[in-house]
Amino acid sequence: MADQLRWDYLSCAAPDRVATPNIDALAARGVRFDRTYVQSPICGPSRMSFYTGTYMRTHGTTWNDVPLRADEWTLGDYLRPLGMRTQLVGKTHMRADLEALARLGVDPASPAGRLAVECGFEAFERDDGLHPEWTGAPASRFTSLRYNQYLNALGYDGLNPWHTWANSWQDDAGAVHSGWFLDAGTKPARVRAEHSETPYMTRRAIECIEQSGDAPWCIHLSFIKPHWPYIAPAPYHALYAPGDAPAAVRSDDERGTNHPVYAAFQQLRYSQAFSRDEIRRTVIPAYMGLIRQIDDELGKLFAYLEARGLLESTLIVFTSDHGDYLGDHWLGEKEFFHEPSVRVPLIVVDPRAEADATRGTVSGALVEAIDLVPTFVEFAGGTPAYQRVQGRSLMPLLHGERPPGWRTAAFSENDNAINGVRTLLGSPLDRSKMQMVVTDRWKLLRFDGYAPMAFDLHDDPHELHDRGSDPAAAAVVAELEDRFADWAERVRRPTETAAAQERRTGTQTERGILIGFWSEDDLTAQRSQPRGTNG
Amino acid sequence: MADQLRWDYLSCAAPDRVATPNIDALAARGVRFDRTYVQSPICGPSRMSFYTGTYMRTHGTTWNDVPLRADEWTLGDYLRPLGMRTQLVGKTHMRADLEALARLGVDPASPAGRLAVECGFEAFERDDGLHPEWTGAPASRFTSLRYNQYLNALGYDGLNPWHTWANSWQDDAGAVHSGWFLDAGTKPARVRAEHSETPYMTRRAIECIEQSGDAPWCIHLSFIKPHWPYIAPAPYHALYAPGDAPAAVRSDDERGTNHPVYAAFQQLRYSQAFSRDEIRRTVIPAYMGLIRQIDDELGKLFAYLEARGLLESTLIVFTSDHGDYLGDHWLGEKEFFHEPSVRVPLIVVDPRAEADATRGTVSGALVEAIDLVPTFVEFAGGTPAYQRVQGRSLMPLLHGERPPGWRTAAFSENDNAINGVRTLLGSPLDRSKMQMVVTDRWKLLRFDGYAPMAFDLHDDPHELHDRGSDPAAAAVVAELEDRFADWAERVRRPTETAAAQERRTGTQTERGILIGFWSEDDLTAQRSQPRGTNG
Repeated sequence: MADQLRWDYLSCAAPDRVATPNIDALAARGVRFDRTYVQSPICGPSRMSFYTGTYMRTHGTTWNDVPLRADEWTLGDYLRPLGMRTQLVGKTHMRADLEALARLGVDPASPAGRLAVECGFEAFERDDGLHPEWTGAPASRFTSLRYNQYLNALGYDGLNPWHTWANSWQDDAGAVHSGWFLDAGTKPARVRAEHSETPYMTRRAIECIEQSGDAPWCIHLSFIKPHWPYIAPAPYHALYAPGDAPAAVRSDDERGTNHPVYAAFQQLRYSQAFSRDEIRRTVIPAYMGLIRQIDDELGKLFAYLEARGLLESTLIVFTSDHGDYLGDHWLGEKEFFHEPSVRVPLIVVDPRAEADATRGTVSGALVEAIDLVPTFVEFAGGTPAYQRVQGRSLMPLLHGERPPGWRTAAFSENDNAINGVRTLLGSPLDRSKMQMVVTDRWKLLRFDGYAPMAFDLHDDPHELHDRGSDPAAAAVVAELEDRFADWAERVRRPTETAAAQERRTGTQTERGILIGFWSEDDLTAQRSQPRGTNG
Repeated sequence: MADQLRWDYLSCAAPDRVATPNIDALAARGVRFDRTYVQSPICGPSRMSFYTGTYMRTHGTTWNDVPLRADEWTLGDYLRPLGMRTQLVGKTHMRADLEALARLGVDPASPAGRLAVECGFEAFERDDGLHPEWTGAPASRFTSLRYNQYLNALGYDGLNPWHTWANSWQDDAGAVHSGWFLDAGTKPARVRAEHSETPYMTRRAIECIEQSGDAPWCIHLSFIKPHWPYIAPAPYHALYAPGDAPAAVRSDDERGTNHPVYAAFQQLRYSQAFSRDEIRRTVIPAYMGLIRQIDDELGKLFAYLEARGLLESTLIVFTSDHGDYLGDHWLGEKEFFHEPSVRVPLIVVDPRAEADATRGTVSGALVEAIDLVPTFVEFAGGTPAYQRVQGRSLMPLLHGERPPGWRTAAFSENDNAINGVRTLLGSPLDRSKMQMVVTDRWKLLRFDGYAPMAFDLHDDPHELHDRGSDPAAAAVVAELEDRFADWAERVRRPTETAAAQERRTGTQTERGILIGFWSEDDLTAQRSQPRGTNG
C-alpha cells in the first residue's frame, strides 16, 4: 500500500505520466481493478476500513486519530485462525480505544493486547510515516523510532533525522530547509536514495519474510510516500520536471461554485496553494519521483520473491489508501469525493491456476477497499464472516466468473467535524458529514443540510458539471438518494451470524418457550405440523 | 423494572383497572413520565438500551439473545468511577459477545470479565426469569438456579420447581398443569405467594442493600412478572375476574388490514390466541393479579427503605422494558409499535430538594428509556458521556426546568429477522427491520420495503386509523420520514468526545503538521494570525 497515491499516476492506468514498469508488470500478471473506491478518502478511516472490511460508520474511526471500536475484528483476527500470520511493516494509522481496552481489563502488553493496539497485526515494524516536531515534543518520540536509529547509525545525525535528513534539503549556502514546505519539491532530500524511507521499508519487508519461515504469512508493506512531505532523494527529485506536471482538471464554473461545502474546501490553505500553478509544478515532479522510487523498490521486492520461489504461492495486492487532488477541481489533499481523491489503484495477482483466465485484464467492476479482507480470507482457505465483513470477496472476479448480485453502487463517507471545513461553514460537530454513492454511470455527493452534488461520469468523466440541482437530473438524484438510504439502513454489524439467526427462527417451541398456546392439546396439535412461522 | 408491564395497568395512569396503591404513592412523591418509549419493544434489545443509554442500532443487540457489542459502555461502567456500585437482582437478558471477549484475551472469570458478561452489573443475583425445559436440557441449568435451590429447600421438590411449582397449577384430580399454557390464567400457582418469584426477588434486593454497607449503590431490581407464564399464586389469581378484563382496543378495519407486515403480526399464533375473548378474559386477570403482587412487594421494599432512613437519599425509578398487546389491535405479545407495546410506565423520585417543585406531577415530555443512564450519572455526581450516551438526563425535567432543545421525536426499532413475521413475509434476513418515530402528535411506523403506517394521536389516540397511505397525511408522513433520516444519520457512537474533536480542530500546524505552506515565510505569516480554520 502506498499512501496518497492517485489511481492515475501509474503508467498502466495513464501512460503519459510517471513510468511504473514494475507495477505495470504486476498488472500484466493479474487484474487491475479500474473502479476501486475507498470507504473514506482520508488515511485513518480509510485504512481502518481496509483492515476490518467494514464501512466507516461501523468501525467508528470517523477521522484521523479517532479510535477504532475495540470489538472490531481485523484482518489478522480472521487470518490467524486459518494458520496465517498477519504482519505489519510500515504505516497503519491505528488508534486503539485504550479506554475500552482498559475497562475490559485487556493488558496492552499481553499477547491479545499487543495485537489489539496494532489493529490485529504483529508489528514487525510499525511506522506511521510522519514524525513532526512541536514545542514540548518528548525526545523519546524520535529516539525510539527505528528509522531514526537506522539513520543515526549511518551517520545522519540529530534527534529526528527523518525530518532533518530524509525530508529536508540543503541550499548552496549550506542552510537546511524543511521538506514540509511545498517549495522543497524540486530539491533533493539530504539522504542518499537507498537510505530514504521507501527502500528502507522495502528491505524491512524482505527481512520480515526471511524471518517468517515456511508457515503461511500475510505481510502488509505500507509506505508513507508519496504522501507529503513532498520531497524525494536524488535522482528521483529530478526525474520529472515542472513541465511534466499534468494540467489541472478544473473549470471556471467550479471556481465560482455556490455550493457551500465545496466552496469551503476550496478556501482551505492547501487548496489555495495547489490552485497556484507554480506550486503544482514544483510539487508534482516530486510526487512523480516518489512514485517512480516506489516502483523501483517494488521491482526489487518482486525480484526477491521470484528468487525465493515465492511468486507462485503469494497473492500480491498493490493499492493506496486514497488519492491526492494536486489542484484538480481547485482542491488540494483529499477528503472530498472527486475521482482523484476517492478512487485508488488496485492490482491483484492471484498466482493460482484458477486466476489464469484473467491475467493482464482490467476489470470495471465496482470495487470497495473493504473487499480485500474477504478476498484474503478466501485465499487463506476460510469463509468470510459476512455477518461482520461488509465487503465482498474478489475471488469470483479474479477467476473470470460473473458473480450474481455484484454491487451496483459503491459508498464512501467523510466527517468534517475536525477539519477546517466545519468551522468555515459553522456547522455543528455532529452535522458535518458527507457521503458518496457511485454507480456505473453516476456519482452523488450528499451533505448534512446542503444540496447534493452529482456527476454524470459518462458524459462528464472529469466531473466538472455538477448536476445536483439540475431538474433534468432530479430523477437520477432521487434514485441515488434511495440507494443511499437503503445502504444506510442495511449497513449494521450484527453480533450474530445470519445463519444463526436463520437457525433460530421458529425454534422457540422446541426450546420449551411456549407462547400463545391455550392448552396442552393445542401444543400437541401444533407439534404435528411442520416447523413453521409460529415458532 | 417489571417485565412486559403496560403503561396503562397502574391505577395512577388508568384508575379503573388494577389497583397499585404503592406505585401510585411513589408517583405522588415524584414525577410520572407519561410519554416514555422504549428503544425496542422486546426484552433483550430494550434492556440493552436501558443499560447502555444507546439505541439498538448502536449497541448491536438486534433481538433477544443477540450479543451486545463488547465495547459498549454500561451503566456500571459509568457509575463505578463515580464511587457508586452497580448491582443486579434479577433479569437482564444480557448475552455477552464471548467471541470478541475471547479474542481480546478477556478472561470471563477476571474482575473485568465478570462485569463484562453481566452487562456491567455486579450480579448479586442474576435470574432471567424463564427456565424452560426441552429434550436434552442439561440438569445443571435447573440445579444451579438459586431460586430452584430456594424452592427445593422449602420442600417444593423436583428438578425445576420454578416450573412445576411456581408456574404450574394442580387440578382437583391432583394432576399438575403447566403455567405456560394460557388456560392457567384463572388458576392458582402451586407455590405459596410468599415463595413466588416477585416476593423472593424483592427479599433478595433487601438482602443486597443490607450487604452493601454505607457506600453509594445502584441496584437494578428486575422482576420477570407480569411477563408470561401468566399464572399467579393465590390469592392474586382470583383478585380479578374475567369480567375485569378491559375490552380490547381494536376495530374491524384493523382486522381487514392489507398492510402486509401488520397482517403478518396478526397471523402469529399468540396474536390469534389473544384475539379470542375467552383467552383474554382468562389471562388478563392473572396479568392484573401479578401486577398487584408487584405493587404489594414494592410496598414492603419502600417500607424497608423508609425504616432504614434511605428514602431521603435514594433515587427510585419504576419502569418496564416494554408492554403487552393483550389482544389490542388483534395482536398479542409485543414487537410492533402501538402504544400498548412500545410505551412504558416511568416514575422517578429524586429525593433532593431541587426536585420538590415537581412532586406528584405528570410530565408529557417525550422520554426515551435511554435517558435513564445519563440521569443516574448526574445523580451520582458525574457528567454524562454524551459522545457515547444517546439519551438525555431527565434531571432538568425533574427539577422543574424547561430544558432548551428537548427532543421533539422519540425513536424505537425492531428487527423481524428472527421472528415468525420474516418467514411469513418471505423478506430477506437483512431487510426485515421496522422503526417508529413518535412526536407530540403523530406516530410513524416505517418498514423495509413496505408502505409506512401513521397515526394521528390527537384525533385517534387509540391508533385505529392508519393514515400511512392517506394523501391528506402525505406532508406529515414526509416530515416524519425526514425526522427519521436525520436521526439515522446522526445516531452513531464516536469513540472520541465532541470536546476532543473540537479541541483538535485547527491544531495541526501547532503540532508540526505543516500542510499547504509554500515556504517558511508563509508559515511565519500564518502564525501571526489567530488560530483559524486552516489548522
